[in-house]
Amino acid sequence: MEKFVGETVLMRIFIGESDKYGHRPLYEALVELFRSAGLAGATVLRGVAGFGAHSVYHTDKLLRLSADLPMIIEVVDSQEKLAAVMPQIDQMMSGGLITMEKATVIRYNHHPDR
Amino acid sequence: MEKFVGETVLMRIFIGESDKYGHRPLYEALVELFRSAGLAGATVLRGVAGFGAHSVYHTDKLLRLSADLPMIIEVVDSQEKLAAVMPQIDQMMSGGLITMEKATVIRYNHHPDR
Amino acid sequence: MEKFVGETVLMRIFIGESDKYGHRPLYEALVELFRSAGLAGATVLRGVAGFGAHSVYHTDKLLRLSADLPMIIEVVDSQEKLAAVMPQIDQMMSGGLITMEKATVIRYNHHPDR
Repeated sequence: MEKFVGETVLMRIFIGESDKYGHRPLYEALVELFRSAGLAGATVLRGVAGFGAHSVYHTDKLLRLSADLPMIIEVVDSQEKLAAVMPQIDQMMSGGLITMEKATVIRYNHHPDR
Repeated sequence: MEKFVGETVLMRIFIGESDKYGHRPLYEALVELFRSAGLAGATVLRGVAGFGAHSVYHTDKLLRLSADLPMIIEVVDSQEKLAAVMPQIDQMMSGGLITMEKATVIRYNHHPDR
Repeated sequence: MEKFVGETVLMRIFIGESDKYGHRPLYEALVELFRSAGLAGATVLRGVAGFGAHSVYHTDKLLRLSADLPMIIEVVDSQEKLAAVMPQIDQMMSGGLITMEKATVIRYNHHPDR
């Protein structure tokens, strides 16, 4: 079990669940991009309520089937790797926003026996 | 499709799912406040386990009907807009905490055809 | 109702839903650690899609029963309290990563009547 400490960038992409890239959900297309680009990981979180660029209030209580709930895709990687995929992200986004923050990162090497 | 890069504040409000403001869920009242104040967006995330000020361990596995699961409301906007709604947030909170961080933001203008 | 403003650390632990510590889910063991160490709170978020160290694409649409979906555990507390539990966290992690960021925190004292 090894541990590495360093600096990283936490990128968070705020989009809607119904956003598309071509015929696919945008969040799926973004995760696929990050995977194929060799990024270390990505996590997609689905909001249970919220609103975005169009100020329509969404909730999963009344509108579960039709709501455009907000989603957040989180990626933790180096400035260089994120900059390398940014042109493709720009091409795929049709709204929404991205935040980027510097953070300290602790990485653990996977222990195969556990 | 236009892209704007600038500085922003990421505000994250940590409350419980059962917190109320009057007779309404607090998270709903906060989202309504942010919408009516013209903020750019808000995303409500519901935790699946956790604990808060009272150190009671909650999980959605055993206690789904009664649990006070933690929730996080995320808002990305300018320091000025967040400062303008802070007095109302202060009045509505009955516990919990808020974190605020500076971040780089990339905003995309919604493309109407996609 | 009292309000305190100060500096804090936001720690975010990225693991998989199927990660174990002994026979227990790792996220449960971590939340229990944080509760018993007297930390102020912890929130566990479950992703709906994503990938991690092994680059296997996960989604809850097709693989809900078997997927190793990503999870994020968020803890907001002082540098000192987080440093005190770090040796135990190191012992429990078998992969994954942790980010730590400084943030401004606003804490609200729970109001007993509401």
